[in-house]
Amino acid sequence: MTAQEGFAVDPWSVTEHRLDLAQLARSESVFALSNGHIGLRANLDEGEPHGLPGTYLNGVFELRPLPYPEGGYGYPESGQSVINVTNGKLIRLLVDDEPFDLRYGELHGHRRSLDFREGVLRREAEWTSPAGRTIRIRSSRLVSLTQRAIAAVDYEVEAVDGPVRIVLQSELVANEQLPNSDGDPRASAVLEAPLEAEAHHAHGTQGSLVHRTRFSQLRVAVGMDHVIEGPDGVSVTSESRHDQARINVTTVLQPGQRLRMVKFTGYGWSATRSVPAVRDQVEAAITAARYSGWDGLVAEQKAYLDEFWSSSDIEIDGDVELQQAVRFALFHVLQASARSEERAIPAKGLTGPGYDGHSFWDTETFVLPVLTYCLPGAVAQALRWRHSTLPLARERAAQLGLAGAVFPWRTIRGEECSGYWPAGTAAFHIGADIAVAAARYVRVTGDVDFERSYGLELLVETARMWRSLGHHDPTGRFRIEGVTGPDEYSAVADNNVFTNLMAQTNLRAAAEAVGRHQLEAAALGVDTEETAAWRDAAAAMFIPYDEKLGVHPQADGFTDHQLWDFEGTPQEKYPLLLHYPYFDLYRKQVVKQADLVLAMQLRGDAFSAEQKARNFAYYERLTVRDSSLSACTQAVIAAEVGQLDLAYDYTAEAALMDLHDLGGNTRDGLHMASLAGACIALVSGFGGLRDHGTVISFRPRLPAGLVRLAFSMRVRHHLLHVEITHERTDYTLREGDKLRIAHDDEELWVEVGAPVQRPTAVPEASERLPQPPGREPARRTSQAGPTTGSGVSSAEHLPAE
Amino acid sequence: MTAQEGFAVDPWSVTEHRLDLAQLARSESVFALSNGHIGLRANLDEGEPHGLPGTYLNGVFELRPLPYPEGGYGYPESGQSVINVTNGKLIRLLVDDEPFDLRYGELHGHRRSLDFREGVLRREAEWTSPAGRTIRIRSSRLVSLTQRAIAAVDYEVEAVDGPVRIVLQSELVANEQLPNSDGDPRASAVLEAPLEAEAHHAHGTQGSLVHRTRFSQLRVAVGMDHVIEGPDGVSVTSESRHDQARINVTTVLQPGQRLRMVKFTGYGWSATRSVPAVRDQVEAAITAARYSGWDGLVAEQKAYLDEFWSSSDIEIDGDVELQQAVRFALFHVLQASARSEERAIPAKGLTGPGYDGHSFWDTETFVLPVLTYCLPGAVAQALRWRHSTLPLARERAAQLGLAGAVFPWRTIRGEECSGYWPAGTAAFHIGADIAVAAARYVRVTGDVDFERSYGLELLVETARMWRSLGHHDPTGRFRIEGVTGPDEYSAVADNNVFTNLMAQTNLRAAAEAVGRHQLEAAALGVDTEETAAWRDAAAAMFIPYDEKLGVHPQADGFTDHQLWDFEGTPQEKYPLLLHYPYFDLYRKQVVKQADLVLAMQLRGDAFSAEQKARNFAYYERLTVRDSSLSACTQAVIAAEVGQLDLAYDYTAEAALMDLHDLGGNTRDGLHMASLAGACIALVSGFGGLRDHGTVISFRPRLPAGLVRLAFSMRVRHHLLHVEITHERTDYTLREGDKLRIAHDDEELWVEVGAPVQRPTAVPEASERLPQPPGREPARRTSQAGPTTGSGVSSAEHLPAE
Repeated sequence: MTAQEGFAVDPWSVTEHRLDLAQLARSESVFALSNGHIGLRANLDEGEPHGLPGTYLNGVFELRPLPYPEGGYGYPESGQSVINVTNGKLIRLLVDDEPFDLRYGELHGHRRSLDFREGVLRREAEWTSPAGRTIRIRSSRLVSLTQRAIAAVDYEVEAVDGPVRIVLQSELVANEQLPNSDGDPRASAVLEAPLEAEAHHAHGTQGSLVHRTRFSQLRVAVGMDHVIEGPDGVSVTSESRHDQARINVTTVLQPGQRLRMVKFTGYGWSATRSVPAVRDQVEAAITAARYSGWDGLVAEQKAYLDEFWSSSDIEIDGDVELQQAVRFALFHVLQASARSEERAIPAKGLTGPGYDGHSFWDTETFVLPVLTYCLPGAVAQALRWRHSTLPLARERAAQLGLAGAVFPWRTIRGEECSGYWPAGTAAFHIGADIAVAAARYVRVTGDVDFERSYGLELLVETARMWRSLGHHDPTGRFRIEGVTGPDEYSAVADNNVFTNLMAQTNLRAAAEAVGRHQLEAAALGVDTEETAAWRDAAAAMFIPYDEKLGVHPQADGFTDHQLWDFEGTPQEKYPLLLHYPYFDLYRKQVVKQADLVLAMQLRGDAFSAEQKARNFAYYERLTVRDSSLSACTQAVIAAEVGQLDLAYDYTAEAALMDLHDLGGNTRDGLHMASLAGACIALVSGFGGLRDHGTVISFRPRLPAGLVRLAFSMRVRHHLLHVEITHERTDYTLREGDKLRIAHDDEELWVEVGAPVQRPTAVPEASERLPQPPGREPARRTSQAGPTTGSGVSSAEHLPAE
Repeated sequence: MTAQEGFAVDPWSVTEHRLDLAQLARSESVFALSNGHIGLRANLDEGEPHGLPGTYLNGVFELRPLPYPEGGYGYPESGQSVINVTNGKLIRLLVDDEPFDLRYGELHGHRRSLDFREGVLRREAEWTSPAGRTIRIRSSRLVSLTQRAIAAVDYEVEAVDGPVRIVLQSELVANEQLPNSDGDPRASAVLEAPLEAEAHHAHGTQGSLVHRTRFSQLRVAVGMDHVIEGPDGVSVTSESRHDQARINVTTVLQPGQRLRMVKFTGYGWSATRSVPAVRDQVEAAITAARYSGWDGLVAEQKAYLDEFWSSSDIEIDGDVELQQAVRFALFHVLQASARSEERAIPAKGLTGPGYDGHSFWDTETFVLPVLTYCLPGAVAQALRWRHSTLPLARERAAQLGLAGAVFPWRTIRGEECSGYWPAGTAAFHIGADIAVAAARYVRVTGDVDFERSYGLELLVETARMWRSLGHHDPTGRFRIEGVTGPDEYSAVADNNVFTNLMAQTNLRAAAEAVGRHQLEAAALGVDTEETAAWRDAAAAMFIPYDEKLGVHPQADGFTDHQLWDFEGTPQEKYPLLLHYPYFDLYRKQVVKQADLVLAMQLRGDAFSAEQKARNFAYYERLTVRDSSLSACTQAVIAAEVGQLDLAYDYTAEAALMDLHDLGGNTRDGLHMASLAGACIALVSGFGGLRDHGTVISFRPRLPAGLVRLAFSMRVRHHLLHVEITHERTDYTLREGDKLRIAHDDEELWVEVGAPVQRPTAVPEASERLPQPPGREPARRTSQAGPTTGSGVSSAEHLPAE
């Protein structure tokens, strides 16, 4: 795909200049609006045509059976799937009794645009109906970042050529028909009409529907109210039934006359509250939104985003497309997490139904590290959600015969929903991913209250899990066996280096947190013998190393395995998991996604520079990037080992994943981890940020394609600005008192008003490392022209079918 | 269970002296009749009460969907389940219009008996109806070993106390209602009424039904004819409908008078033949059987069995219960295989629906080694069935990216039906199990025609598979990675010793067979480069060895794994697979069933005596015998390393598996492999038979509990008789010219008329080896009293749910 076919390149916005019906689902994801609580796919106001209708509420799901041909102890029996809840964004338009449908009549222009500083999706269209009437449409839509329960639409229709009778039907519709899915027919049946009607109401300009999911028993209330402006003689009626509430607005417009309707939609849901309670909460939210008015909502949105960008922007000179992509990425990461508030942040955010709406390790490993430095409150919320699921995680640990807590590989509410244990339950690293994210949050923010009330328990329960999962061998080494690391083309191996190093961090961080909160730790039953056992296990952690090759095997025995026949694998056989059996992938040297390389990023202190270089070169030859959770990590380590052009290519791949639909599945929702990963690639890759030590450290290196890279970071009460050019790096403290940082290996202090400059180092030129044939990242040759995606595939997780 | 509760101990028969309604399903399996083509569970003639109604035809199954919560490339989408076909053994009896039902009225006596020399299930009962009429029933039932399509019942009712009106309804009933199952409701739905009616007919004493399975499209025809003897005035009518054909016989019996009915039932099925063709074939079979008559069928049965026992009996002095059990075992192994004729021999034979009626590696590894020496024709048939599935196996190999043929882990017709690949597809050893069975058959029988037409291709295609599955590492060792060995508490490991040694045998045997049949091999595309590659891989085969411990790890890294916490595992948590997750079982040192120990039996030449002793002791501590496919192998190696009492205990466990219902699941069908294994335990354990060399060798050792052990073996045209006492072993050649054998390590010749005697060695006394706590085999202290089964569980294969 080229930009000509897709979205215009602009540093602050994404714009679509014409409507491509074949790509509707993709642009519905790209233009999706969300605040982390409500998610609206960018379906057209009038509902049809559509790619995939989608309205999501974070945490609202339906249960569905997980069938097994051969069952097993501890297999989850029930899955959770995000559902398309009541559509509250629908505004149908009749033009002289002909429905406004872009598939008929003549479309003179159609433009949609989303400005990241504004957070409003704007649409303009001019259309001549089959009967020959021409109208102009302008609509603007937002999901409020400041009023969590509220979405709103400002809809305006203008008669162009002569009197035209207009009917606007503003609706709430439950149980929308969805396009056919190929999945398990039983699962589809459950999810086809998941909402059971409980109450409906319409009066004047207001309407509401209350439904409940059949099996998960979640109550969902949706309400709407309207402000209507038009010529005299506008008639308003309303009606409701089980699955529909509708406000009908009718008038006749003369040429140049306009009918404007502002629609305020409110959402609420609860597992416990009654019908009147949930409906009242929604109607209160709508009342407040109506009080703010459309302009008020837009102004609040702008103010919220101004604040966000002022401390979170990543600026790039020299590659405007990458600049656009990274702001697109930050904007969507913000949308996914801003108001998720003790709910999970799903792998697709609330932009589509991909992966059943589940959250994975993506959140803690890719999304939270970005938010930690720019929106730390969202990190605390996300980790408080994990904390709220501790009772389920303890239950799961007990079921598996382990101490502490075992967090689910994939879930919406907290229960394990993975139906394939070698790539689910066995991926125990999720526990360390969460613990390490919590420890990082506390270290960077200094939020002692959070640590005391939430972080400590997360660390303690995961440390307990690791201590019971591993064991000391006769020579005293602590081994963790039969687990699956990040790379999903290996499974159930012994001593996965990533897992063991992350577990080591987890065990140490838990012991340290206990030292800071002894009273609370005692209440959790931790004594000094237990923390000593954690420290001992961490100190004795076994990290396999292949002396013959001088590299770390991803896990015991990995480097002895047969090499995948890359030469004999045609390009159309990627992603491999769709064309080769797991048994073959697992037993050979082929890597879906960074695993050992990710360990080198998150635990860089555990590797020498020489090891990093050798390991990276070794795994580059094996890594096919059949997951979108890989390019960003490869970018970071490529930059560290001096392969700056390669790092640049990987950065662009991560950043353009959705704008260029590189995985071919943007239609199912955006790749939040890849988008967040693009930010990591820039800040930790070219900025060289590492935070595993006691001091925030940088090793800035700029690829030839970039002229300048600048970013800000919140560290405790400081706001640090970093600006990198090929010549020098400027560290400027914008808020807070003195901050100690490291540049390359030099420690230095930065103060407000006393920026520090250091030369930006240039690594020695080295030959570009090879990848498996055909799996090389696209070379980013020119910043002006967009690249063509290749060698990237769709599945960052095993597909659920 | 004790014999008092179960079956009377007798060296040649099994007898039940009273009817235990709670144990009906168990005795239905124990008394099941089969010829390998037809299988009838021992349901009462009158149909009810029943434990589990069952009539099976080898190869008749229904397809059912295999659902996955998360799909994967190469997962089988469709399973095969044996179905209960039309019941042709039903004879209902009305006594003065009251149905003869043992649950009502008064039962004065009920006796069932099966004599292994006769092959007829005999039943006698005396019953007083609720209305006070007393009658006597005698029925005899057989499934003909000589007339493959025929089962017959000789049914006689006698009035005891006064005139009684008798109605006999002899029926064919399709789609019998089965007791509720707990499985997947969709699968149950498919299997609930699997037969669609195509034709029905009744006239005079004859009736027939033709049905077809809905999805597998197999046509099943059943017919019956009757010979009726009674007082004058017997009336016969007949009728039929879709799922039922019935012959009604009515008379009034005076005290002492009898009504006798001989029922001949014929079965036929076909995937291709038309309704008239299949029905005609059945009616022809019935005509022939009626021509033989009941007495003729009984005489043929007796003659067939006399011949079998004369060359196949295993005699034991000193333990009559074990004597009974081993003849029970031989009888059922015979029944399962006698006339299976190019169909699979299922894990349960045709005695019950357990494991969906699937065949596993059990056949080639446990059943065929026994048959090879006593019923070699059945071995040829079973292997010809495997050969007939080669097109499917080649397809499967191609799907998995391998050369040659990959045989299914579980199947009825030949397609892979395993829904859990780590314990299914990954168990590649099935290929070597088949190849080694074929090579053994050829070596023992000298059947060159078979080798040329069938064996060669089986060997070639499996050798090709191994060559493509393994690879040479940089040091030149041939490694086979990511496979699962026999032990189902480990999976997907590297260099499983059993697998690698069996693959080595497979590769070598293939190369040798090619040398003997160069023309045919060339037609299969084999050239000398290919056989050289096989020989090279076999020679370079990597066999891991743990130098520190001085034992062979079951697979790479096994001995480094954490020990299972046997002390902390309560007895009620066995079998472990029902109470612990696979992830935990797989990553720890705990063994479900003999794996390395089986390698030491089948490839004893690859281990020194010291290694065998150390390995056996090591794995005894780890082996929980949660599979019935273990005790027999442990018996063999226990005997070899001089642990004769332990071997004796294991032998008894294998032999009594079903008579004592040690696994608690005899109701689902008999454990054919365990029964065959009991014979192996005696002959290869105490007899010390090994056949992996060029000469048949023996190392006789007798445990204290046995006084004498004698058995015969067919080896090519020889019939060798071996008789072992504590003092000496007699080798007598009964047929054939000179035969070279080995006794201990001495090679000697045996000739007809010139028996050879050698002293029976007595191993040095050694301390009894320990097993995991609570998992010790029951001590066989007294030959007279029966033992109580303990520590044995139910699942020789992963359960299908």
